[in-house]
Amino acid sequence: MTRNGHPPAPAAFQEMWRDLSPVGRHPGSGGYRRFAWTAADSDCRSWFREQAEARGLAYEVDRNGNQWAWLGDPAAGDAVVTGSHLDSVPDGGAFDGPLGVVSAFAALDELRGRGVEFGKPLGIVNFGDEEGARFGLACVGSRLTAGRLGIAEAHRLTDADGITLPQAMEAAGYDPDAIGADPERLSRIGAFVELHVEQGRALDLNGDRVGIASAIWPHGRWRFDFRGQANHAGTTRLGDRRDPMLSYAETVLAARREARLAGAVATFGKIAVEPNGVNAIPSLVRGWLDSRAADQTTLDAMVTGIEEAAHDFAAEHGVELDVVRESFTPVVEFDHALRDELARILGKEAGLKVPVLGTGAGHDAGILSGTVPTAMLFVRNPTGISHSPAEYAAEDDCVAGVTALADVLEGLARR
Amino acid sequence: MTRNGHPPAPAAFQEMWRDLSPVGRHPGSGGYRRFAWTAADSDCRSWFREQAEARGLAYEVDRNGNQWAWLGDPAAGDAVVTGSHLDSVPDGGAFDGPLGVVSAFAALDELRGRGVEFGKPLGIVNFGDEEGARFGLACVGSRLTAGRLGIAEAHRLTDADGITLPQAMEAAGYDPDAIGADPERLSRIGAFVELHVEQGRALDLNGDRVGIASAIWPHGRWRFDFRGQANHAGTTRLGDRRDPMLSYAETVLAARREARLAGAVATFGKIAVEPNGVNAIPSLVRGWLDSRAADQTTLDAMVTGIEEAAHDFAAEHGVELDVVRESFTPVVEFDHALRDELARILGKEAGLKVPVLGTGAGHDAGILSGTVPTAMLFVRNPTGISHSPAEYAAEDDCVAGVTALADVLEGLARR
Repeated sequence: MTRNGHPPAPAAFQEMWRDLSPVGRHPGSGGYRRFAWTAADSDCRSWFREQAEARGLAYEVDRNGNQWAWLGDPAAGDAVVTGSHLDSVPDGGAFDGPLGVVSAFAALDELRGRGVEFGKPLGIVNFGDEEGARFGLACVGSRLTAGRLGIAEAHRLTDADGITLPQAMEAAGYDPDAIGADPERLSRIGAFVELHVEQGRALDLNGDRVGIASAIWPHGRWRFDFRGQANHAGTTRLGDRRDPMLSYAETVLAARREARLAGAVATFGKIAVEPNGVNAIPSLVRGWLDSRAADQTTLDAMVTGIEEAAHDFAAEHGVELDVVRESFTPVVEFDHALRDELARILGKEAGLKVPVLGTGAGHDAGILSGTVPTAMLFVRNPTGISHSPAEYAAEDDCVAGVTALADVLEGLARR
Repeated sequence: MTRNGHPPAPAAFQEMWRDLSPVGRHPGSGGYRRFAWTAADSDCRSWFREQAEARGLAYEVDRNGNQWAWLGDPAAGDAVVTGSHLDSVPDGGAFDGPLGVVSAFAALDELRGRGVEFGKPLGIVNFGDEEGARFGLACVGSRLTAGRLGIAEAHRLTDADGITLPQAMEAAGYDPDAIGADPERLSRIGAFVELHVEQGRALDLNGDRVGIASAIWPHGRWRFDFRGQANHAGTTRLGDRRDPMLSYAETVLAARREARLAGAVATFGKIAVEPNGVNAIPSLVRGWLDSRAADQTTLDAMVTGIEEAAHDFAAEHGVELDVVRESFTPVVEFDHALRDELARILGKEAGLKVPVLGTGAGHDAGILSGTVPTAMLFVRNPTGISHSPAEYAAEDDCVAGVTALADVLEGLARR
């Protein structure tokens, strides 16, 4: 045991991982269902508070339900903050989010073990509702805090059961009337670093344990509503049909072709069909396109190509098509000075080979980067699988991530 | 008013149609949601009972929840029975089912108006749960009665909310322990005639109001489970994906091609996706194929072609595929003697031009035809649309249907 009664990583890491592991885990799928403002989310939040208090950190919840743990007084300003989120996608993995929060506490333990004295306040944060699994909008906690989501719009968010965000927050014991932008809080932060499991195989293919993010690809969600004519599947001649499932299927394949040509990604992963009966030609097939590319021009061209193809297919089948852009996030270039500082700390000082890589995934770090100097660290994912019960990172790599994060925090605190 | 206080058709028809019209109608879609053993179903059943009692008919419910109304004593045997069903598919039309029941009562009124005396018992029936919208199996009421659905299997039927058929029957005030085959009841029936709105445009294309069914095409339902690998839609390179949505889409299009080549029909109208998240490559895409052809050989060849194509697509994308046949109904040839008798009654005696046509839709008449001499009358559908709020038949054609049904019942009663 080191001073303050905290064991050093990786023991601390393992213990936290074990504690958090059963929370919100579905016994059937083996995946996690930690959705915002549910019982599983509340258990995650209790865990965060316990970790903060066990380390003698000052614990607080901000107006948007994000949790913070402080060493030193944040009012002093120029704080160094790290953290991520604890919620999950439906049947998500154990690492996306929690690895960043667990590593934050473990890195603090490591620095205490090293006897580091911080000249600046150090914060650990758990942002609420990052995945948007319940209300359909990602990064609600950080968006609200950064003033990038309006209060009225947030109040209109509704889950699949018709429960609104305010109702859900209230049921979980939070005050939905308090939500809104929090510029004063963000102004105290000098640097924010989010550690995250990589959601691709770039590190693994190069044999690296840890990487630094360069940018988040521009990305968006588009809803394709194909409206045809409900009819009897057994008696309606092919020529008399206006079957929207056919145009949907053609569009799914067109999206794949356009993505391959663009060197980008495009996915139809969510669908809603009406009436969704075995013996009924659908009246409506609603498909959601998730589309991302390294730059805006490529993304625009790809989505335009998919939309044009979809309109052609729909016209061919007598189907009406509406395409609605539901969300869009422009490219996020992380702070270059901070990124270079991380590369210097990890490369020259710690002697690591740390590649700099882009990512197609959105993160709270991306939301904050418009307001606060922000950087990200990625930890190797040997399969690249994410948003799945099979998501995995080796313990050695996680420990390397904790050490790298500790190095970065120590270096930044010393600036 | 005629004797017994019953107005003649079409007034009786119009009045019954008006009474039944609001029951289970969804204000948003304008379609019907009359699912077995729900409140809407119960309202339909009350309506049936009232119609029976208003006409002084003996009312009874059989062990499987089918409703019967009798003129004369069915125990005398050689009964002439007509009727259909009152339940609906999700957001179905007003005609599929109810037209046969309303026309049955209206035809009785017409015959009473004509002063016809029946030498045989006349029955009107409302079969329960014909569409199978709630429990996934069509014609549950007639299948049970005909001994073509086992009690244990029926007891295992479960709706989307996890409610079993016995629980649903019990909640609606029926005894689920009483269900089972009812050969004694069927043995009393000398002929069963079901009138139904046509679910295609064959009559309309030839300018006919009424037709006679020759056969029900063999048809079945197959479940295609495409299992891939859930993964992050933003960060997983195309080459690393095992996306089951792609194989599903290719299979939807292959089914259309195979159906066109076979001169048959094949439809993917129902889908279930896991985890069904916008930013998640699915782990599972489950699609249901409804497939029908004029003969067994054609149907087998078509389904084999679709399955083989699906397996090829799945293999190409590293996706596992299981295909399960969930239900199958062989070709039903309606009783030739009865069919010829209907043609004689309507053609030679009533002077109508009545085409004989096959159909791709299953019906209670198809289930009963293995046990009882059975025939069907179709009424013109000017658009061919069915299983949709837009399903429609002109009042003139409905009245022609009532008259034809009355002619048929009178002719059969006189045999």
